[in-house]
Amino acid sequence: MQHVAAEPRVSKEAWSALSSALQSAFSDRFQTGAALREQHGHTTTYLANQPPDGVLFATSTDDVATTVRLCAKHGVPIVPFGVGTSLEGQVNAPFGGVSLDLSRMNTVLAVNGDDMDCVIQPGVTRKQLNAELRDQGLFFPIDPGADATLGGMASTRASGTNAVRYGTMKDAVLSLEAVMADGRVIRTGTRARKSSAGYDLTRLLIGSEGTLGIITEMTLRLHGIPEAIGSVAASFSTVGEACEAVIATSQYGIPVARIELLDPLTVKAVNAYSNLSFAEQPLLLVEFHGSEKGVAEQTALFSSIVSEFGGHATPAANSPEERNRQWQARHDAYWASLQLRPGAQGYTTDVCVPISKLAECVTEAQNRAKAAGFDAPIVGHVGDGNFHVLLLLDMENPDEISRAKDYVAWLNHLAVSVGGTCTGEHGIGQGKQQFLREELGDACDVMAAIKQALDPQDLLNPGKILA
Amino acid sequence: MQHVAAEPRVSKEAWSALSSALQSAFSDRFQTGAALREQHGHTTTYLANQPPDGVLFATSTDDVATTVRLCAKHGVPIVPFGVGTSLEGQVNAPFGGVSLDLSRMNTVLAVNGDDMDCVIQPGVTRKQLNAELRDQGLFFPIDPGADATLGGMASTRASGTNAVRYGTMKDAVLSLEAVMADGRVIRTGTRARKSSAGYDLTRLLIGSEGTLGIITEMTLRLHGIPEAIGSVAASFSTVGEACEAVIATSQYGIPVARIELLDPLTVKAVNAYSNLSFAEQPLLLVEFHGSEKGVAEQTALFSSIVSEFGGHATPAANSPEERNRQWQARHDAYWASLQLRPGAQGYTTDVCVPISKLAECVTEAQNRAKAAGFDAPIVGHVGDGNFHVLLLLDMENPDEISRAKDYVAWLNHLAVSVGGTCTGEHGIGQGKQQFLREELGDACDVMAAIKQALDPQDLLNPGKILA
Repeated sequence: MQHVAAEPRVSKEAWSALSSALQSAFSDRFQTGAALREQHGHTTTYLANQPPDGVLFATSTDDVATTVRLCAKHGVPIVPFGVGTSLEGQVNAPFGGVSLDLSRMNTVLAVNGDDMDCVIQPGVTRKQLNAELRDQGLFFPIDPGADATLGGMASTRASGTNAVRYGTMKDAVLSLEAVMADGRVIRTGTRARKSSAGYDLTRLLIGSEGTLGIITEMTLRLHGIPEAIGSVAASFSTVGEACEAVIATSQYGIPVARIELLDPLTVKAVNAYSNLSFAEQPLLLVEFHGSEKGVAEQTALFSSIVSEFGGHATPAANSPEERNRQWQARHDAYWASLQLRPGAQGYTTDVCVPISKLAECVTEAQNRAKAAGFDAPIVGHVGDGNFHVLLLLDMENPDEISRAKDYVAWLNHLAVSVGGTCTGEHGIGQGKQQFLREELGDACDVMAAIKQALDPQDLLNPGKILA
Repeated sequence: MQHVAAEPRVSKEAWSALSSALQSAFSDRFQTGAALREQHGHTTTYLANQPPDGVLFATSTDDVATTVRLCAKHGVPIVPFGVGTSLEGQVNAPFGGVSLDLSRMNTVLAVNGDDMDCVIQPGVTRKQLNAELRDQGLFFPIDPGADATLGGMASTRASGTNAVRYGTMKDAVLSLEAVMADGRVIRTGTRARKSSAGYDLTRLLIGSEGTLGIITEMTLRLHGIPEAIGSVAASFSTVGEACEAVIATSQYGIPVARIELLDPLTVKAVNAYSNLSFAEQPLLLVEFHGSEKGVAEQTALFSSIVSEFGGHATPAANSPEERNRQWQARHDAYWASLQLRPGAQGYTTDVCVPISKLAECVTEAQNRAKAAGFDAPIVGHVGDGNFHVLLLLDMENPDEISRAKDYVAWLNHLAVSVGGTCTGEHGIGQGKQQFLREELGDACDVMAAIKQALDPQDLLNPGKILA
């Protein structure tokens, strides 16, 4: 991983004064060791690691407010940090400053079974939350690949394989508590399921990547663990036929919980990695949630749609073990794909397009990757039109990285040109700012005006989303 | 209806200069007749009518941008207007200015069947939209009582009876085009189903009641008309039992499309108005959407829950005629209730609370209304915890209105005290600003900072949401 030093913005005097204050307030919960700082910079893609000057481990909202007030006093940036799984450089510290590590704020504060909601601290991870909910028959559906913190997931407006049924983080959060740039603590909503009370600050903070406020508490909607779960795998001759089946499934109103596309290259990787034997063709993995009868009906209807579009539905994976194995394989697709080119690292893309354009975009993305000489397996949350091309790169090879950047730029242009977005779920961070401008134009100026109004010193995660 | 003159804010000179400019740009699409102006002020509740100084009928985004630029130049307020069905004074012009009537921008611009979305102008009404979609097997689910414009519905973050299944306007809108206070036209998103591209300006504009920008185009999510629809009416001895049944229904994961509560007084009114014969007890009207088998299963499961909580499910209304009659009766509940006190006008409340608190809140609301001598039928979108107490008032009696205001204040306090909101779907407007502050505290200052940043002259619907 390439390291890039912070641009000088914090004077030595300011840092020294702030350090003393943080040391005095937080003792050894404020750290400045090099390894820890590096670990708190970006570590997951080609983007260079830009470590903060120090790391503060918060354990309460008060800690966050105190840190923000001290940083504001000394003009020092603050970069919120969960577990560091973001993909577009969101946790880098391009101007130095304090990484505010929220991972120790990981308590589930309340679970309200009758209301099917819970109140948590932002450092709770999605797997931890589901482990704590299971006994009550409840679950939280949003599942990005990594075991991210819920605070981080809210900050990037994350989603995952269940979004087609359960929505994204913007749908899963009822209310937030956040510390604003001046240290004020606000609450953006209540436990009511819906509200028309003023500006939607909840949704404004979700996806703002820590640039407008720091999330310190979250109220989340939960769902009942379904009575029955069914799963089908369906192979198609072409991506086009697979996508036609997805469109028909949506139009029939089949409430699929997941509908995932794996291209032949990903299937090959997954077969090898997880000892499976899917045909090396475009594959849909589909999951149904409901009553026993409902799942059976959905399974039958979906299977008939598969046949209609020339696909082949493999026997439904109906034992929990078989189903878990299949979905574990899907979740391991990233790791499996890395094995296609031993020693390579992944550079993942994240476009989302109208479903009617999906087949064309996936096919063009395959062709162009092939022409450019890339190993580039593709997976997609295709019920939403969201797909990821994973470029397998030698990160020590500047030429490859340069060509990869060209490819990603081309792909983002393509998505925007068909009415889609350059990011379905990973966010803008440092990596996609030029594409945000291309996609939303003058709306970026409106975003900048909001940022300026709420964080006039530009101290909350500076250099992210907006240049 | 009491009239209240605008507070002087627009000088005669400014108004004269603007009038000339608007006349010259728009000819007879700019009008200043008294009747038309009054019709463009608030006309639906106890709130006084505050007419604008003139009305501009826009037919294009360019018209809106031109009007906004001219108003900005002369420092004159602009109040966006759809069809005037809002309930909290959102279309009043307390500082005078131009009512920007968008009802002629009522074209459905595109329907994308494969993507299940459409692009419309903001003056399209919900009934018009559904009439235009029907042939394609699609529908738009959000249904406030009135046949409001979609632009108005977005502006108040409206919902209605289907929200428990299909969400509110915040969930139904993929992207907006809007004219900002300086006349710039922005696009807040794309046709992608989900996105992590920067701040969620779509959701920020939804519910902003025209105070941050004027919506000129909307991209909406659509749904397939369900294969089968079923309906059940269930009577209970107490509101508490009815609410327990609602909670159990939610926990079982039954995907009800609608679950509406009518209190005994509303049932009495509806029986008389629509010639029905429901028992004068707490009543749930429930609708199911799905496949034939799915609806049958949901109906059976719900009916067993009803029995479990001591209720009595009347035979399911399974003929479309019978079902339509039942739901028409529900939609007519407002008009039916007015007949409980001939000559009275309605003053409707709109709290939304966690479902676990619903029975207690509805019961307290009934008791207090009775003690205060009000005829006060109650209906609720109880799957979301949202309910409306309708106070039947003699609007010429200041004492009644004063007591009604006390009651509403008490009810809003109650909702906030149990973790709910003072408005589930009607918005803040002029009527609920003090309760917004009580509910969200310092978050109101963050809203004000955003307003100041995006509309520094305070020309877009001034005096709404924030005092």
